Formats: sequence, C-alpha cells, structure tokens
Amino acid sequence: MRTLYHYPLCAFSRLVRIYLKEKFLEHELVVEYPWNRKKVFSEYPLPPDIPTLVDKDGIVLEGWYAIIEHLEQIHKTKSFFGGTFREKAETRRITQLFNEFFFMDVTKQIVFEKIMKKHTENRAPDSSCIRKGTAALKTYMEHISWLADHRNWLAGNDITIADMAAAAQISCVDYTGTIDWEQYPIAKDWYARIKSRPSFRDILDDRIPDMPPAKHYANLDF
Amino acid sequence: MRTLYHYPLCAFSRLVRIYLKEKFLEHELVVEYPWNRKKVFSEYPLPPDIPTLVDKDGIVLEGWYAIIEHLEQIHKTKSFFGGTFREKAETRRITQLFNEFFFMDVTKQIVFEKIMKKHTENRAPDSSCIRKGTAALKTYMEHISWLADHRNWLAGNDITIADMAAAAQISCVDYTGTIDWEQYPIAKDWYARIKSRPSFRDILDDRIPDMPPAKHYANLDF
Repeated sequence: MRTLYHYPLCAFSRLVRIYLKEKFLEHELVVEYPWNRKKVFSEYPLPPDIPTLVDKDGIVLEGWYAIIEHLEQIHKTKSFFGGTFREKAETRRITQLFNEFFFMDVTKQIVFEKIMKKHTENRAPDSSCIRKGTAALKTYMEHISWLADHRNWLAGNDITIADMAAAAQISCVDYTGTIDWEQYPIAKDWYARIKSRPSFRDILDDRIPDMPPAKHYANLDF
Repeated sequence: MRTLYHYPLCAFSRLVRIYLKEKFLEHELVVEYPWNRKKVFSEYPLPPDIPTLVDKDGIVLEGWYAIIEHLEQIHKTKSFFGGTFREKAETRRITQLFNEFFFMDVTKQIVFEKIMKKHTENRAPDSSCIRKGTAALKTYMEHISWLADHRNWLAGNDITIADMAAAAQISCVDYTGTIDWEQYPIAKDWYARIKSRPSFRDILDDRIPDMPPAKHYANLDF
C-alpha cells in the first residue's frame, strides 16, 4: 500500500493529501508529529521529512517537491501542471510563491507561533511574528484576488497544483482564524470552490488537540 | 538571445546561473535590484520574480522552479536530476531543503539582514536574526558533511541541482564571512570542488558596492 506520513497542520502535507485525492491515488495516512518522529527515513531527520510518501514499489519520497514531480512523471493521466509550457511555468511560479515565500512570510509566522512552538520549543507565541505574518498575508490575498479575477483558476483555465499549494497554505492559516474573508470576496469565492471539492474534505475534518479551529473553518458557506 | 534577469546576491539567481553554465545554454545577464525593478513581467512583481529567464522563443519563466524544470524538459542531454527515480527523489529532497528551509533559516536571516535590508527597508540589521541564522547554519553544514562523506556529490555519484542549490545558498552566506570552514573539513572539500568548476567563476567575481566579500570568498584554496 502507498503510505503518506504527514502532520495535519503541515501545509506541505496538505498539498500532497489534496493532490493524491485529485489524482485518485489510493493511500493510507499515518500522522507524524514534527517534534516526536516515530518513523525516520534517514540519519538526518531534517525538513522536508514531513510529508514522506512510501510508494507501492517501496521508493521513499521526502517532501512535496520529490513526491509530486515523481507522481506526475509516473501517473501521466490528468496532469495538474497545465497543458502548455506557458501554463506549466505559471503553475510552478505560483507554487513556488506559496511553498517558499507565503510559507516563510505567513504560515511559519502564524501557524508555527500559535500552534507548533509550544511543542517544539516549549515557548509562548511571539506576538511580533504573528503581527508580521498577518501584515504579509494581505499582499498574498490581493494577489490571489487578482489572479482569480482574471482566470478560472490561479494558473489558468484548469485547477493545478498552484491552487492546491495556495489552498494548503491558506487552510492552515485559516484554521487559526487569522483571515478576514470579508475583505477579499474574490479570493473567498476561489477558496469556497476549492473547499467544496471532495479532495479537500479530510483537510476540513482535521482537528488539533486543545486547539479547535476558527468557527468558519470547515464551513463551505463561510 | 536567452536573457536572465538576476540579482548577484540572490541565491536562486545563482542556482540558475550555475545551472545555465553547466548545461552550456548561452545567455546574457541583466542585473535587477529587488528594491528597484526596471523590467517587470506582471502586474504583481512578487517573488519569485527574480530570477526571471526569457528564453529564445519568448517564454517568460519566473523563479528557479519554473526555469529549471522547463529547461530540463526541453534540453534533455546531460540531466542534472540524477538517473534513477531514487536519485531524482534525493536530488529534489536536498534541493527543497536548501531552497526552502536553508533559505528561510539561514540566508534570509544573514544575507538579507546584513546586505539587503538597508536598501529595501532602510533599517539597520537585526542582530538577533543574524544570531539565529548563524546558529541554524550549523545543522545544515553538518548535514552537508554527512552527505559528502557518504557520497561523491550530495545526492549521489554525479553532480545534480542539489549541489548547485546548496552551493548557491552557501555562497551568498559565505560572501558575508559567516561560515567557519575550519569546523567543517568535509563540507569544505565539497565546496572547494564546486568553487573550482568553470560554472562557478562568475559567482566568485560578484561584488556588491560598499560591501566587499569576506577575504577567502573567491579563493579556491580557502
């Protein structure tokens, strides 16, 4: 069986979970806590060790980049990278924007501080990080609004991993209730479309012990 | 002509510059300052807008991910992703480690604070960021040492973009003189091999006005 080792509030894990469902690739999920790894694949359990996918043939794929590029190469039906070279470039531009920069500027500042820091460093959240993350969020939400206003999905006519990467990051931040959706009606419409896909259902069911999500988190009509 | 818009101390630009030379893909370089863009390709000049490659056929590729995956697909001779699926997965794991996590934990904390912040925010470096970045550096240098001790190059027998991504990030940090190479003899040997490649020569010639590099920066025998 294909097995994905993931952490529910890890945005990269969420990207892979959504992708696996969209590709109809059966798998089982095993939760790993970044601060208390049970299954370790190398002597150096460094990021991107979560998520790790062990595929049916035993190959170990660590991190969204290795996992998704591998599966796209093996399972060519229904590509999620766009059809033309131009669409592929735009898909990868937006994916990098969210996986590298949104993660660093927003997800890490908010989700790590509010939820994970007490486990990994046993320290209280740093409110200046949360403020910085909340301020940075605005630029990205405006960019999503612009893209969704000009296109059907973020990178073009069809849903791609750019949408999944953006939604995966945003869903983690949204769990903490930081996004004021009324400010971004176009981005909200795009996110509502992603939320209502069957591939997103498990993400909306995620619950972290002692840390319930924002009230609207799992609501399709938020 | 193929044109790369880059910034000399942008680690992602350096990765693409090394890669283009290793692939023998002719190109011209145009310097762009992140805080003062001249050539803008979209209404939202957000990262990863530097580096941007405009290829011979006019396609615009923004960010290392779009650029490198596109060029690998088009120019199949001499792949820099490794041969087997396992090597490809390891190449992408290490590339993600450096482009996402090393960049966030180390390069951003040190290079941004010491060199770029005065231009982008007109503020003095935050010494707590530099301290954090310097502390985080240790883990990555030990990981490089371990990999280089067990393999010829970081991801296996041959040089891959994993080496280029790691060396691109490290070279930016090394410009500031933060790396105590005597602590890491095996990593030093690996870096000396990369430094001596013709593809790295231009990187070693980079000079930032008012901010000369560490004395050993361009030295092949450091």
